[in-house]
Amino acid sequence: MTTAGSNREPKYRRIAGALKQGIEAGRYAPGDRLPGENDLMAEHGVARMTARQALAVLQAEGLAEARKGAGVFVREFRPIRRRGIQRLARERWGSGRSVWGTDVGDRDLAVEVVEVAEKDAPEAVAGVLGGARTWVRDRRFVLDGKPVLLSVSYYPAALVADSAITRHDTGAGGAYARLAELGHEPVRFREEIRSRMPTADEADRLRLAAGTPVVLVCRTAFTADGRAVEVNEMVLDAGSYVLEYEFEG
Amino acid sequence: MTTAGSNREPKYRRIAGALKQGIEAGRYAPGDRLPGENDLMAEHGVARMTARQALAVLQAEGLAEARKGAGVFVREFRPIRRRGIQRLARERWGSGRSVWGTDVGDRDLAVEVVEVAEKDAPEAVAGVLGGARTWVRDRRFVLDGKPVLLSVSYYPAALVADSAITRHDTGAGGAYARLAELGHEPVRFREEIRSRMPTADEADRLRLAAGTPVVLVCRTAFTADGRAVEVNEMVLDAGSYVLEYEFEG
Repeated sequence: MTTAGSNREPKYRRIAGALKQGIEAGRYAPGDRLPGENDLMAEHGVARMTARQALAVLQAEGLAEARKGAGVFVREFRPIRRRGIQRLARERWGSGRSVWGTDVGDRDLAVEVVEVAEKDAPEAVAGVLGGARTWVRDRRFVLDGKPVLLSVSYYPAALVADSAITRHDTGAGGAYARLAELGHEPVRFREEIRSRMPTADEADRLRLAAGTPVVLVCRTAFTADGRAVEVNEMVLDAGSYVLEYEFEG
Repeated sequence: MTTAGSNREPKYRRIAGALKQGIEAGRYAPGDRLPGENDLMAEHGVARMTARQALAVLQAEGLAEARKGAGVFVREFRPIRRRGIQRLARERWGSGRSVWGTDVGDRDLAVEVVEVAEKDAPEAVAGVLGGARTWVRDRRFVLDGKPVLLSVSYYPAALVADSAITRHDTGAGGAYARLAELGHEPVRFREEIRSRMPTADEADRLRLAAGTPVVLVCRTAFTADGRAVEVNEMVLDAGSYVLEYEFEG
């Protein structure tokens, strides 16, 4: 184990460590401005570059973010709690309520429909759905003015051709209620989760701060007879989400 | 949307885009060496710095990794599939089998026990367990020679004081089997998942390539009467894992 005060540790790391302890101890609260380069130079007797590196460590680890001309601030982590299992319970969407409603409480969630179109799905998705021809719903979720989620859902084209799933507004209860009406009620779900650094396009569309990864959630919805009726590929701002799963052993 | 060929896009991004398409199309397979700086300079008529930047984009996005003196290679993503729900089914650990056994198939998994000690838990963990005094099991999982997971489990000290949970080897079935014997069988689980960039210490202990985030999984195990008997804080190499949850709607 390295100890915080080790002499072999570079100076900027020791300063970064002290700032981190300050954040953990609540001396710097979410949204607070951290000491600036000049403050750190004076307090620790180091060069500007060293002070800058120390602040860069906190930004790279996603603990703080620079705001142009204003300084470096403790990241506000007020995450969306996304409950994988309860969230999809039939009572929710069955009664016309959005599955997303429960996640965000009283916060202002806007759903931008980027595109609804009939298209060929990527090969991996086509393999799961048993055919390339799909209706695609491409959406972006914006919470309190900040984009937090990119979501692209694929449905077998032949299955949903004449339903509201092909329209801008899927109606009360959303796509799952429509699938149920069509006789393809989703009853079983698989969610696969990965994380990686964003592509330039994702960083742009989610307005990600530097040093923020994305979480990829790929959800597949199955009917009682095991047919996959939706693949939903989601890209989440990792700084905005906690995913939660509760289950019996 | 930006198009790949847009003139407003910097050259290095266009080259990076072409390399990415090559990876997606399978022209460069996992483990393959990508064209080097000299190749890219000749092919695209660009300066060395531009070629280097293009390769840096792929590394930053975690699609490729540099090997010293050998070039830049397509990242091999042969993930561990961690099944959150089936994995914890009682039949598994009840019969003396490790819950980890199912995740890695025939691959070589070594578990390094870093420390087993009686200690005060961090405040948040103490809050969940209803007391700060805990037995702590700190372990590192190494798969095929590569560290993939840091795992620290906390158990209420009074509950496990005289059990094998306080020893190096917890015995057949592991800690959950011991908890069951003590009359505190875990039957319900909550897993909370986040992702962020690693701290320097985590990057070091997991030997993470640049541009690789970590996934944090915090699991809490509950008895039938709702008592939390374990909090397990895990730090996963995001490049090594797919987490999977299957559940009924």
